[in-house]
Amino acid sequence: MSDTVIVNEVGLRDGLQNQPVTVDTDTKARLARLLVDAGVRYLEPVSFVSPKAIPQMADAAALTPRLPADEGLHYTALVPNLKGYQLARDAGYRTVALVLSTTDTFNQRNLNMSLEQAAASCESIIAAAREDGVATRTYISGAFACPYDGPVPVSLPQQLTGRMFAAGSDEVAIADTIGAGNPKQMKDIMTPLIREYGADKFFVHLHDTRGLAAAMAWEAADLGVRRFDASVGGLGGCPFAPGATGNMATEDLVYLLESCGLKTGIDIQGLREVVTLAAEATQRPLGGRILEWMASQEKRGKTPCLW
Amino acid sequence: MSDTVIVNEVGLRDGLQNQPVTVDTDTKARLARLLVDAGVRYLEPVSFVSPKAIPQMADAAALTPRLPADEGLHYTALVPNLKGYQLARDAGYRTVALVLSTTDTFNQRNLNMSLEQAAASCESIIAAAREDGVATRTYISGAFACPYDGPVPVSLPQQLTGRMFAAGSDEVAIADTIGAGNPKQMKDIMTPLIREYGADKFFVHLHDTRGLAAAMAWEAADLGVRRFDASVGGLGGCPFAPGATGNMATEDLVYLLESCGLKTGIDIQGLREVVTLAAEATQRPLGGRILEWMASQEKRGKTPCLW
Repeated sequence: MSDTVIVNEVGLRDGLQNQPVTVDTDTKARLARLLVDAGVRYLEPVSFVSPKAIPQMADAAALTPRLPADEGLHYTALVPNLKGYQLARDAGYRTVALVLSTTDTFNQRNLNMSLEQAAASCESIIAAAREDGVATRTYISGAFACPYDGPVPVSLPQQLTGRMFAAGSDEVAIADTIGAGNPKQMKDIMTPLIREYGADKFFVHLHDTRGLAAAMAWEAADLGVRRFDASVGGLGGCPFAPGATGNMATEDLVYLLESCGLKTGIDIQGLREVVTLAAEATQRPLGGRILEWMASQEKRGKTPCLW
Repeated sequence: MSDTVIVNEVGLRDGLQNQPVTVDTDTKARLARLLVDAGVRYLEPVSFVSPKAIPQMADAAALTPRLPADEGLHYTALVPNLKGYQLARDAGYRTVALVLSTTDTFNQRNLNMSLEQAAASCESIIAAAREDGVATRTYISGAFACPYDGPVPVSLPQQLTGRMFAAGSDEVAIADTIGAGNPKQMKDIMTPLIREYGADKFFVHLHDTRGLAAAMAWEAADLGVRRFDASVGGLGGCPFAPGATGNMATEDLVYLLESCGLKTGIDIQGLREVVTLAAEATQRPLGGRILEWMASQEKRGKTPCLW
């Protein structure tokens, strides 16, 4: 099993999409540059959604040509429907992220479709992308729990995963969208999926809402998953509701994985600079658990020794 | 494998021992009562140490008769040496906790002994306890890392565990005293130990200093460990150094384990009352990650639904 892990930075998209302060294109480009400087190689900087619904993402096409163009970078755009897919493709994205939620209610609220309609929509996007030679990663959103209907049986994300692979999705991301999952569920969902499709077909996407993201990430890594989403500083969530957190902080994920002997290629000190700028840009305190610890060490006059 | 977990509450001892505010005996007794009312059955309320070194524990003998005497409660006293053992035994404790650190430096700072002297001291306490019919639990302190010498090879806690079992220790607690361990180390340390001695001989003692306690607790539980220390509200650590945290919060451990289908018998709502009194008594903010989330839900007018 490889010890190299792909950490996909989704802070610019999942992190910024529901902030009350809309971050300008210039700052987003600076954040992307700092992320790449810290060693990040996979980024999801934009979604092609209705600017009326999500004004924070209205500059998707404008931001794209301003992103770092270093060799070896991998960008994804999130697309909610066929129209969004076409915009992403035309903007030059070679991988798109699709979203399929596990319940009717969640799909209705998210995409104004039933579960069946949303699955069929993903299938048609995947078909179009295959014709264009664009890769697809389908997110099974609410794979652990639905924000409206509560806990989800493990068979549901497994079944939707099978359907998306059958439709030709290149990868599937198992997403604990509201941070209500637990590591036992992770084991129960992923074990048969990995056996059937192989660990390298999967991303895991976590939110640290209830404090279990590191335990879930460790369980996934222990099962062989080597692809994770994360958001620098834990950016995301609703800033008006303390505790309604964003994605698992990139720095916490990197610390977990590296301390367990896996290689992310990402420098935590470099991420601190990104966190500083992101906190300034969103006008809110940011930073994962490991940064709190580092700051506390420095406050006592000690140099934090991570490894 | 049993789905019942023993959660040993060490907040009154490990949590209070380094607080700048010395909590009075009356309040400690009230905290113990609230803990028992919340379903806690295992408590370490005191240590028999020099009152000059740790004045916060000077009332150990006075507190003991004021602790709840309900049936089915299990109390432990921490003892640093033979004299402390005798005081604990005379106060009526039927189980004592011993401490053996993994390095010379840590033993010197903690007990003013070399590693060899500390191991020999534990052996003589264990021998005395066996004669008296008192049970012993030996803590391998700094099992993951030493606060002075850094990371510790997994063979060291394994070897000291073997020596303590050979001396007749009834149980061994593997302690990440400074919260610098990771779940991979947990797996590497515990797998051969459990194979040799059985999971039910072990406690795991964690601090959430760097955000990995839940991942380590999950790994231990997944390996079959069913005995954990925790401290209500995350009480402990040095309040002057934010981020230098106490034990893993009892409420976070309970949430993790119960969400994964294990049974602790402890009610998180009941723990919230203990946290309120403990925060008042120590004059500092307290509370684990799950309480932050519950409070954020309530602030939004929602009833937090844990399961």
